[in-house]
Amino acid sequence: MTDNLDTPVRNSQQLLDNLLGNRRLTRRVIEVFPEEELFSFRIGDMRPFAEMIKELLQFGAPMVEGVASGDWGEYPQLELPVGKAELLEAWDSDTERIRAVWPQISADRFRAVEKAFGIFESSGHDSIQYMVENEMHHRAQGYVYLRALGIEPPAFYDRS
Amino acid sequence: MTDNLDTPVRNSQQLLDNLLGNRRLTRRVIEVFPEEELFSFRIGDMRPFAEMIKELLQFGAPMVEGVASGDWGEYPQLELPVGKAELLEAWDSDTERIRAVWPQISADRFRAVEKAFGIFESSGHDSIQYMVENEMHHRAQGYVYLRALGIEPPAFYDRS
Repeated sequence: MTDNLDTPVRNSQQLLDNLLGNRRLTRRVIEVFPEEELFSFRIGDMRPFAEMIKELLQFGAPMVEGVASGDWGEYPQLELPVGKAELLEAWDSDTERIRAVWPQISADRFRAVEKAFGIFESSGHDSIQYMVENEMHHRAQGYVYLRALGIEPPAFYDRS
Repeated sequence: MTDNLDTPVRNSQQLLDNLLGNRRLTRRVIEVFPEEELFSFRIGDMRPFAEMIKELLQFGAPMVEGVASGDWGEYPQLELPVGKAELLEAWDSDTERIRAVWPQISADRFRAVEKAFGIFESSGHDSIQYMVENEMHHRAQGYVYLRALGIEPPAFYDRS
């Protein structure tokens, strides 16, 4: 029975598909925000949703590229894109960077334990998993902002 | 190069560890809520956090048990636990149910495509993955509620 615990449950392609499905949903959440509120609306002491997306850009494609290559620079510091169109453009461009580099990630790279950006010590797989979880976390906060603004967010289950 | 896409990146034990780490974090979010606001505070037309946790209870241990056995009943309808202590007790009890049944989930069960609760068609793995993502999604909404209440939520990266 306990041998089942060694059973592989997900391969690289399936992780990529999950990651891309999540990025499509996050993109729809950015799209549905009114431009002004995207950059200004906040609850409590939280950041506007555009600032959260900036974090996801810093922590997205550069993370996957670092896992692929093992070359880690400093944690990326990006300028906040100036408008919704620029934010979506940066998002789409990073999606292409992820797609392009993904097939290079070998079993060894998924397993290698390293300090991502010199800071976060983790296996390559767990760094990517954490990156996707961080995206889900902030996207869900965007859902609350939209609800607070009286706007219906995209369906959570739709990853098409 | 493209052979890398077949590389297994996660096994059953690692998925379980991720799931349990997420449950520990969600538990801390429940714990830090003031009891009254847990059952009453809401933003926009959203549910109080306790109602979201009720959904996670319906969609948590019963999902894992269904994947393990292939026996799917109706989508579970639970009563909302009456207080924070009862909610935490239900949460902990479900964590034990998940731990108990998990080693029985075979490679075949992870792969089998079935209608979970007669509704959601998906492989066993993807049903469980979706269940964890749904938990992250609602937990993050709880983070916003806490921030709106002026309460510091637990650290997102801490899964201990």
